[in-house]
Amino acid sequence: MKKILCLFLISLTLLVIAHAQVLRSPNGKLTMTFALQTGGTPTYTLAFKGKEVVKPSKLGLELKNDKQSMLDGFEMGKVDNTTHDENWKPVWGEVSTIRNHYNEMAVTIRQAISDRIVVIRFRLFDEGLGFRYEFPEQKNLSYFIIKEERTQFAMAGNHTAFWIAGDYDTQEYDYTTSKLSEIRALMPKAITSNASQTQFSPTGVQTSLMMKTADGIYINLHEAAVINYAAMSLNLDDKAMVFQSWLTPDANGDKGHMQASCTTPWRTVMVSDDARDIVASKMIYNLNEPSKIKNTSWIHPVKYVGVWWEMITGKSSWAYTNDLPSVHVGITDFSKAKPNGTHGATTANVKKYIDFAAANGFDAVLVEGWNQGWEDWFGHEKDFVFDFVTPYPDFDLKGLNKYAHSKGIKLIMHHETSGSVRNYERHMDSAYKLMKQYGYDAVKSGYVGNIVPAGEYHYSQWINNHYLYAIQKAAEYHIMVNAHEAVRPTGIARTWPNMIGNESARGTEFQAFGGSKVNHVTILPFTRLLGGPMDYTPGIFEMDISKINPSNNSHVNSTLANQLALYVTMYSPLQMAADLPENYNRFKDAFQFIKDVAIDWQDSKYLEAEPGDYLTVARKAKKTGQWFLGSVNGYEQRVSDIPLDFLDAGKTYTATIYADAKDAHYKTNPQAYTIRKVVVNNKSRLSQVCAPGGGYAVSFVQK
Amino acid sequence: MKKILCLFLISLTLLVIAHAQVLRSPNGKLTMTFALQTGGTPTYTLAFKGKEVVKPSKLGLELKNDKQSMLDGFEMGKVDNTTHDENWKPVWGEVSTIRNHYNEMAVTIRQAISDRIVVIRFRLFDEGLGFRYEFPEQKNLSYFIIKEERTQFAMAGNHTAFWIAGDYDTQEYDYTTSKLSEIRALMPKAITSNASQTQFSPTGVQTSLMMKTADGIYINLHEAAVINYAAMSLNLDDKAMVFQSWLTPDANGDKGHMQASCTTPWRTVMVSDDARDIVASKMIYNLNEPSKIKNTSWIHPVKYVGVWWEMITGKSSWAYTNDLPSVHVGITDFSKAKPNGTHGATTANVKKYIDFAAANGFDAVLVEGWNQGWEDWFGHEKDFVFDFVTPYPDFDLKGLNKYAHSKGIKLIMHHETSGSVRNYERHMDSAYKLMKQYGYDAVKSGYVGNIVPAGEYHYSQWINNHYLYAIQKAAEYHIMVNAHEAVRPTGIARTWPNMIGNESARGTEFQAFGGSKVNHVTILPFTRLLGGPMDYTPGIFEMDISKINPSNNSHVNSTLANQLALYVTMYSPLQMAADLPENYNRFKDAFQFIKDVAIDWQDSKYLEAEPGDYLTVARKAKKTGQWFLGSVNGYEQRVSDIPLDFLDAGKTYTATIYADAKDAHYKTNPQAYTIRKVVVNNKSRLSQVCAPGGGYAVSFVQK
Repeated sequence: MKKILCLFLISLTLLVIAHAQVLRSPNGKLTMTFALQTGGTPTYTLAFKGKEVVKPSKLGLELKNDKQSMLDGFEMGKVDNTTHDENWKPVWGEVSTIRNHYNEMAVTIRQAISDRIVVIRFRLFDEGLGFRYEFPEQKNLSYFIIKEERTQFAMAGNHTAFWIAGDYDTQEYDYTTSKLSEIRALMPKAITSNASQTQFSPTGVQTSLMMKTADGIYINLHEAAVINYAAMSLNLDDKAMVFQSWLTPDANGDKGHMQASCTTPWRTVMVSDDARDIVASKMIYNLNEPSKIKNTSWIHPVKYVGVWWEMITGKSSWAYTNDLPSVHVGITDFSKAKPNGTHGATTANVKKYIDFAAANGFDAVLVEGWNQGWEDWFGHEKDFVFDFVTPYPDFDLKGLNKYAHSKGIKLIMHHETSGSVRNYERHMDSAYKLMKQYGYDAVKSGYVGNIVPAGEYHYSQWINNHYLYAIQKAAEYHIMVNAHEAVRPTGIARTWPNMIGNESARGTEFQAFGGSKVNHVTILPFTRLLGGPMDYTPGIFEMDISKINPSNNSHVNSTLANQLALYVTMYSPLQMAADLPENYNRFKDAFQFIKDVAIDWQDSKYLEAEPGDYLTVARKAKKTGQWFLGSVNGYEQRVSDIPLDFLDAGKTYTATIYADAKDAHYKTNPQAYTIRKVVVNNKSRLSQVCAPGGGYAVSFVQK
Repeated sequence: MKKILCLFLISLTLLVIAHAQVLRSPNGKLTMTFALQTGGTPTYTLAFKGKEVVKPSKLGLELKNDKQSMLDGFEMGKVDNTTHDENWKPVWGEVSTIRNHYNEMAVTIRQAISDRIVVIRFRLFDEGLGFRYEFPEQKNLSYFIIKEERTQFAMAGNHTAFWIAGDYDTQEYDYTTSKLSEIRALMPKAITSNASQTQFSPTGVQTSLMMKTADGIYINLHEAAVINYAAMSLNLDDKAMVFQSWLTPDANGDKGHMQASCTTPWRTVMVSDDARDIVASKMIYNLNEPSKIKNTSWIHPVKYVGVWWEMITGKSSWAYTNDLPSVHVGITDFSKAKPNGTHGATTANVKKYIDFAAANGFDAVLVEGWNQGWEDWFGHEKDFVFDFVTPYPDFDLKGLNKYAHSKGIKLIMHHETSGSVRNYERHMDSAYKLMKQYGYDAVKSGYVGNIVPAGEYHYSQWINNHYLYAIQKAAEYHIMVNAHEAVRPTGIARTWPNMIGNESARGTEFQAFGGSKVNHVTILPFTRLLGGPMDYTPGIFEMDISKINPSNNSHVNSTLANQLALYVTMYSPLQMAADLPENYNRFKDAFQFIKDVAIDWQDSKYLEAEPGDYLTVARKAKKTGQWFLGSVNGYEQRVSDIPLDFLDAGKTYTATIYADAKDAHYKTNPQAYTIRKVVVNNKSRLSQVCAPGGGYAVSFVQK
């Protein structure tokens, strides 16, 4: 019996080998092998330095109402191999030039029974693999409905994963670090409450998923260019350690309505034995199309403050009055309503922020709660919830913009949709027109709560189309967009660079909602940030929220120095100084770093990186050529010891180092920091103790 | 035991009487009694001439996620009685002045356990009852979700009903005439195939539901002013003969998202022992709000022909080419596609219709299939299916409008949405702007197929909001709307008189899809037409469809004379001459009636009426004061014998009578008609034999 089995396995192996197609990365470290298993099931494997990191994994899609799903019965067709190497210049970014270098293999496979062909296109970069399904228009394939995409990622072991629960409606979870085998048991604890949430599996997790193998190899699973397609989560078979794609469904449970010719998004597997290669990778952007916006001169990075943290902490309110049980937009007369006295977006208060922004070199002021409807905006699946154009009586729309512009400041518009996307689309033109009329060039949009119409989810194909529609419409009006609660970015900002920010993860706001894990910011750059910048809203100086709102006992799990480092470690062309002006005025010396730090970069160097533990990054400002450095630390105190060899050769710099004090601690002593100046050059080394939840920031000024 | 039961029943009756509130109609024939049953369940009864036609029926709503549904536990609050009597002038209609005369009783009931009040407002007209639920804004009631409305209509017997199957997605069924007890058994046969259909119950039927009791009383159940609410069907308990409201759900199965203050639509019960009172009733309009359009000068009746029947019959195609498996709107290059040679909306063909329209005194020409996307518009739940602005290469948008205007003709725009309502809303402004640019002032819209997004139905609250949004947007552009496959009208045209037509029932097109029942047009005026005009598209002269398209063996189940009568019996400010010009040219003498007949009226007289059997109507033209008469007949040959006392006293008329020939028959000899002229006055009588499926039409010209 054993013998027969052996023979069988050997012949099977031969069969597989018979069809094997091999693709190597430019640097030769990665090898992707494509093969058709017996039965004609397409599979791939990925090896790093000769070692399999993705074991034979099936490829295919299960279709609805379709005689033949695209899972097996395939024969090999032609195989096209090409090499691509280009440099392109992003409108904004971590570097001024991005190299897009990969070897490509496009495999055409034919399914006899359906007489259909599918192309699977593989692109192998030095740091990872991208592949997608392509469906050329053909006699037997024009329209089809995806029941489920069945793309596997078979792991070679019980890796350590940095994961959040798979969810159709929220991405705002704290990361759990565990073995893959522990996910099921830890899932209940990993799911914390959110304004809208829908889980689908006890072993379902989201991408970008970061992992580390027992022998120190880093693996990241994600996707790129999610356009006209549902966002993908991963469902783990925790016996076989195999992940399978799990798409976000529509109200009928269908996963995608497809019309050939079309493609799926790219599925990505990054691999390296140096964690710095993962955070430095531009692979997700490279897998997206070049900018569709020809004239990008109106797109620019923005450093801003906002009437926001005082509402998040509960000190102020978005709502104008507490007297109205409900609002009928356009009918309710707010001039007759009694102000609640806590409204944040008052003309006087906004002026305070404008003055602060102007005095400290910021570009803009975000104002939330300026428009009518906040009294009952949440939790009612309200269709006509906002009109996006009608201010409260105490917000002088025209006057405040005039005042801001007179001081060189722009106001940032806020469009909270409350998930009512049809209502937003109905008002989009008038809302954008109002912005242009008063000189707004950026909008923060939000999708808090359940999607209206009922049955739709935040990351389904239909809603993903809405997010892109909003970006494209905004581009017509030369408006930059920062969408919160929208689908996680997948490099689309390369194609639509007016998308200068997203939330799509657990942001600083949660530090005022009970707090986030200490090492959260050491994980985000390995996951969420790979797809695009995050409007993380750093810069909190007062960690005891009860000092702002006595009835809020939240604690910000970070030292002040760590908050400064975030401006460098959490790359974004949109950076907020989120705390209240009065808190910055208490720590003017530390605030100086926020004033100084650049937000657009010529170059970036990842010096130290370990997900969950630490990240140290140096960046060179695009405009000034000055260098800035940020380092964030996790739970354990550690010494960051780095050579400053990234500095320009032959130049001398005054380095101002904003660091944790000896006794600093995220919980017990978060505001203890030191500022010291040292003269350095590219031969110097820097050794710095980082407190638990701490870190440090450095500005280098050429002497 | 019996004794105790009796005592119990007596005390119960007393209890009921104790709370009884009585409302009488202005003419005293109808009596509505409201009472709270033991347990505080609101109920009502309706009596006609002292006889109960609606037995004690429960009122209330079942709520979702709500401690206390609004079904019982109510106490009586205040009762307000008022009388209303006004005359108002519709922008268009069957009469120039409508009297709105009713006695009203508004009952406030309070539910102790929830500390909520609900107002039930009853309006009793001479011909029927209207009532609705009103939810004032109050401490314990702002938002609520309706699980189901539980309004009962308890019938007093096993009446004869003229019904179509309850359905969330179509209203285009043939009527079945049967006892209520027979509905369940006849349901499977009653459900014929449609482009989109969703039944919910084996005894579910749609409103307007027409019934007749054994002792000759006519009862009609319907609703009025369905705004921000789901359309209501009726589910029959066929043991107790009790109908209960059944609303159209959203994708989650919820029936309504409500925000106080708000109201439900009006539930209506018309009652009379004279069927003519039902068809003549303006109750549904009277229960709607006055026009919200101040300047209505741009709204006008329209008599039109169209490039339509040739596609419906299969002679021509909407699509331009047969070479494309699918279309990518805006990307597919139709200039490179091979024309299929059957495209109906070609410049040459449209000119032919424009010439015909101009030569015969029509106002407009409808053109379908003019815009790109018809190659794959149906059955794919395609999101971006049309852009509503891009013509096919063989349709000269600018030139044809110029040509039409030069002959005093307007083109009617066509917007088929294929059920993709978000896509329509996204393009609505550009589509309406295009219409104004070229001088279109009317649009026929369509909602064929399943609604996109998935999970929504044609008559849910969310989609009903879309239909009204389209009407309101059109009004901003001074555009008149004729919406097909949209929710059945409920008198909303009083408030939005630019809604000059709807389909929302089985129209003439089905005569080319295998045929409709012979007596269909004797039922529609008692049901569908009560809520608003129907774009029925009458005027078919060639009943053998194979003469138009050899591969279509459908037969139009109507005589030619019957087709003429429809222009009078099926009131609409929008009347089409649906057949092909060549068919009209074959019967020029009969066609003369279509050319002569008015489409807007000063007065209307219903002379003979029996649902399912016959209907005879005389109408006086608003402009000329001329009289026209139409009579349609059902399955059995009959003699229509009527006094002409409606004619203006002291005047003499030449009556031209277009009637069935002696040997006419809808099936065997439909084109056999006679035309005779007689001189008559208001003392004359007219006696006319009507063939099966026949009828006659008369024009009265003053001598």
